[in-house]
Amino acid sequence: MPDNSLLILPGDGIGPEVMAEVRKVIDWFGDKRGIALDVSEDLVGGAAYDAHGTPLTDATMAKAQEVDAVLLGAVGGPKYDELDFSVKPERGLLRLRKEMDLYANIRPAQCFDALADFSSLKREIVAGLDIVIVRELTSGIYFGEPRGIIDDNEGGRIGVNTQRYTTNEIRRVARSAFELAKRRGNKVCSMEKANVMESGILWREEVQWVHDNEYPEVELSHMYADAGAMQLCRNPKQFDVIVTDNLFGDLLSDAAAMLTGSLGMLPSASLGAPMANGRPKAMYEPVHGSAPDIAGQGKANPCACILSLAMALRYSFDLGDEATRLEKAVEKVLADGVRTADLMQAGERDPATTAQMGDAVIAAL
Amino acid sequence: MPDNSLLILPGDGIGPEVMAEVRKVIDWFGDKRGIALDVSEDLVGGAAYDAHGTPLTDATMAKAQEVDAVLLGAVGGPKYDELDFSVKPERGLLRLRKEMDLYANIRPAQCFDALADFSSLKREIVAGLDIVIVRELTSGIYFGEPRGIIDDNEGGRIGVNTQRYTTNEIRRVARSAFELAKRRGNKVCSMEKANVMESGILWREEVQWVHDNEYPEVELSHMYADAGAMQLCRNPKQFDVIVTDNLFGDLLSDAAAMLTGSLGMLPSASLGAPMANGRPKAMYEPVHGSAPDIAGQGKANPCACILSLAMALRYSFDLGDEATRLEKAVEKVLADGVRTADLMQAGERDPATTAQMGDAVIAAL
Ligand SMILES: CC(C)[C@H](C(=O)O)[C@@H](O)C(=O)O
Ligand SMILES: CC(C)[C@H](C(=O)O)[C@@H](O)C(=O)O
Repeated sequence: MPDNSLLILPGDGIGPEVMAEVRKVIDWFGDKRGIALDVSEDLVGGAAYDAHGTPLTDATMAKAQEVDAVLLGAVGGPKYDELDFSVKPERGLLRLRKEMDLYANIRPAQCFDALADFSSLKREIVAGLDIVIVRELTSGIYFGEPRGIIDDNEGGRIGVNTQRYTTNEIRRVARSAFELAKRRGNKVCSMEKANVMESGILWREEVQWVHDNEYPEVELSHMYADAGAMQLCRNPKQFDVIVTDNLFGDLLSDAAAMLTGSLGMLPSASLGAPMANGRPKAMYEPVHGSAPDIAGQGKANPCACILSLAMALRYSFDLGDEATRLEKAVEKVLADGVRTADLMQAGERDPATTAQMGDAVIAAL
Repeated sequence: MPDNSLLILPGDGIGPEVMAEVRKVIDWFGDKRGIALDVSEDLVGGAAYDAHGTPLTDATMAKAQEVDAVLLGAVGGPKYDELDFSVKPERGLLRLRKEMDLYANIRPAQCFDALADFSSLKREIVAGLDIVIVRELTSGIYFGEPRGIIDDNEGGRIGVNTQRYTTNEIRRVARSAFELAKRRGNKVCSMEKANVMESGILWREEVQWVHDNEYPEVELSHMYADAGAMQLCRNPKQFDVIVTDNLFGDLLSDAAAMLTGSLGMLPSASLGAPMANGRPKAMYEPVHGSAPDIAGQGKANPCACILSLAMALRYSFDLGDEATRLEKAVEKVLADGVRTADLMQAGERDPATTAQMGDAVIAAL
């Protein structure tokens, strides 16, 4: 593989149109900053199903394993609702996560100052919010066996999924959270339901073990996930880094993202173990979904995907300064009042299109 | 069993002190309205463990099976954190739910007008909010087998829990939700993760089946639980009745409760199948927990537990008018500005004590 290889998987819905703006940004970095990313592109999700009858071909999977980083748009849409579970668009995404073993999903929930009034929460509760949810991404009930729907032989059916966590799976994602906390506010809050689930007891004990043996200097607390959901709504700024399992992380990170009021602005990174070249296996995606209702209309906000590229520059390509440059450009565009439709109050008019927002970021760079 | 039998289980933390106020209310209804409830009292949770070495004795369990209704305060506290899973306070509560087969947990999330400013959400987002979450309470990952922590024989451990739902379990709680919706806004939104869990697919299909075959006149929608968490934060008034499984219901109902800003005000009912006398098996509890940090200080708000009694009057004792009377009394007290500490803004002083709040409700009756 060449240096700085990036596989782009635009996916479904608004994925392709936000990715088009990311392409402009990549080109800008190539032209103006001499940063050559070796970009290839392929299909995932419904788009891959339409072309190949599977939401992720083996060839694409193999390519994802080889590159330095994958950048994914979004997958899914009502068009695929009736598909069999095994070929649903989401299976493509889940296969990437699983086979690349991207166990640490890093989801910043940050409230951009210029956007604090978009939150459904009061300004004082969210202004300046800057927390990160570290979600375990390759295990738990998403992948545990046995699973499926079986007949009960009495005319009914039984649906089964299995939540399963090992010592190693918990410890490695806990380490990711502690490492991150050390570079931030030095606080980790771990969330589970140890009061009702044995897998939650193991989770709590193993996170505590990693703390006591490896990161005693980081402040660690534990919270039941239901209380965590409450506290995120009541006073999110009490947190620095939250670490939790795959399913709780799915709900809690979405709730946290929504609280910021800036869902269309939030990137994420999913990281695995280091590859031969020392870089972590990595996939970057915006937190928002495929938003089929606005797809193809130029309404989507490309910032979350652009900021996902910034995370890739920082974590995969060792270009932290360029990442900061890009993040600052996005902040400037917001401060200048450029707004896609999702960032407008009722009554405001003439939103920027997806392309206009992308162009504004380029201009700010 | 005598008519109108009520078993009171105050439990731990603030449970006993809020229940003392409920006792006053029960006495008032006896004295002033000639409503004789046959009240007995027993231990649950840590209190039962301290006395008997188990969070629920067989004798108490048997009594709960016989009465018309159980009213529970709260269970749990840090004192019991180190106890073995099998005797943790929560196991007492879970045993009651399971053995009484209380499959439908009704959790109203209502924003009291006088309290709308206490929400961390903007007033316009929550004022007038009145939704109900119907949470499946006797199955799913809370009770599924296999479960436990096992050695992996390589020095590590594996934690396992099983999410398991049957056709019948899903259909009966769906019916509860549709019945409730018919008496309210006629809308049900069902939440699961059918995009990643087979048990979620079954959930969606069975809820749809009940709708199509038994309640076609009620409006039904489906939402992924992570999107549901987001939408609850963004625009909770879009919902009427939400139906979801045990674990999602735990998080989503707590988030919804917190959004109202009135956590100390919210009651819940857990209902099962009709008994011989036609009344449903029933247990009522406040949504808040045992709040060990403020226990014994007269700071707790007794309203959630008092309103749980109101739900008991309505659903178990066929005293809907008296229930309304009690609910109106609580609303009047709030409108009059009586506030326990949880209902005060920073800077406000001299909160009402638990007993003063109880007395105010009596006075308003
Ligand atoms: C699309 C879906 C499979 C996915 C998940 O549940 O993990 C999404 O909600 C997410 O959070 O990335
Ligand atoms: C105390 C605990 C076992 C319980 C639960 O998880 O169901 C509580 O959180 C609730 O929601 O009633």
